[in-house]
Amino acid sequence: MIQRTSFREMECPIARSLEEVGEWWSILILRDAFHGLRRFEEFQSSLGVATNTLTRRLADLVEHGLLARRRYCEHPPRDEYVLTEKGRDFHPVLLAMLAWGNRHLADAVGPAVLATDAASGAVMDPIMVDRTTLKPLSPRDIRLVEGPGAGPEIRARIARSDAARAARAKQTAANQGTT
Amino acid sequence: MIQRTSFREMECPIARSLEEVGEWWSILILRDAFHGLRRFEEFQSSLGVATNTLTRRLADLVEHGLLARRRYCEHPPRDEYVLTEKGRDFHPVLLAMLAWGNRHLADAVGPAVLATDAASGAVMDPIMVDRTTLKPLSPRDIRLVEGPGAGPEIRARIARSDAARAARAKQTAANQGTT
Repeated sequence: MIQRTSFREMECPIARSLEEVGEWWSILILRDAFHGLRRFEEFQSSLGVATNTLTRRLADLVEHGLLARRRYCEHPPRDEYVLTEKGRDFHPVLLAMLAWGNRHLADAVGPAVLATDAASGAVMDPIMVDRTTLKPLSPRDIRLVEGPGAGPEIRARIARSDAARAARAKQTAANQGTT
Repeated sequence: MIQRTSFREMECPIARSLEEVGEWWSILILRDAFHGLRRFEEFQSSLGVATNTLTRRLADLVEHGLLARRRYCEHPPRDEYVLTEKGRDFHPVLLAMLAWGNRHLADAVGPAVLATDAASGAVMDPIMVDRTTLKPLSPRDIRLVEGPGAGPEIRARIARSDAARAARAKQTAANQGTT
């Protein structure tokens, strides 16, 4: 077992997401589930992962509600694993990783996998926008603020963030003053 | 050190992304970098992580080109860490995790952190769309296909994916035939 700090008690939704998906294998299992795989042997032949690791990761994804176990055969008893709504909602994370990997980690010859429009076959370039305004969300245009669930940890982070930015702005102003 | 399989040789852009960001701490460092933090002490007080772990993770992010080390003080020598273009491009992954965490892991009282429009203050709901058509990208509307860099691994995965879907479609048709 991998020993590491638990992020579960952290308030940050990103830290909680990391804790929830557990580890890399879980993310690759979800990827394969979006590829239409459902059965233990399908995941195993895709991932080449040890049986006990796969068993543990599937159980973990079921326990956290990203996959649901469903019996597809009674004799002999056989289960398959299907994405729940919570699991399907994880899709944008994978798509964002796919886009980043394609952009920055592909071999010189080009990306290995492309997302295309299932209807038209056109290659799609996934970007993040706001649901209502469809405005692209770049780091520059976004400000993270305390939500209703913010506790001391988040409040401290946002205060540190504001302080760091203010210090930098002051520094920039001072530098411009001296040149 | 955590022992795990290397995903680097995998062709899949998602597996490569996972390999590249290394581990959870790297993602939280990037998160803090987007919050405006740059200095060792700033990251450390935000993350509460052991000094040697933070040193290693920062060096790793610099080595992989997501952060750049920049000297901000000569006497005494002090460096800060700033996001590169490759690092900034990771933003959608974090935003997707934030949205998922807010939706599925928040306490009953509501999300701890909200992304707002820096200009208007309006709360933003990040979704993935295609850059050109602005069409929302749901798993159902997307088909993953081989790109120019696809090798045997990707070709096998896409073949397995097509086979699994075809088997399911056949099964569904058979079930509908018997009811």
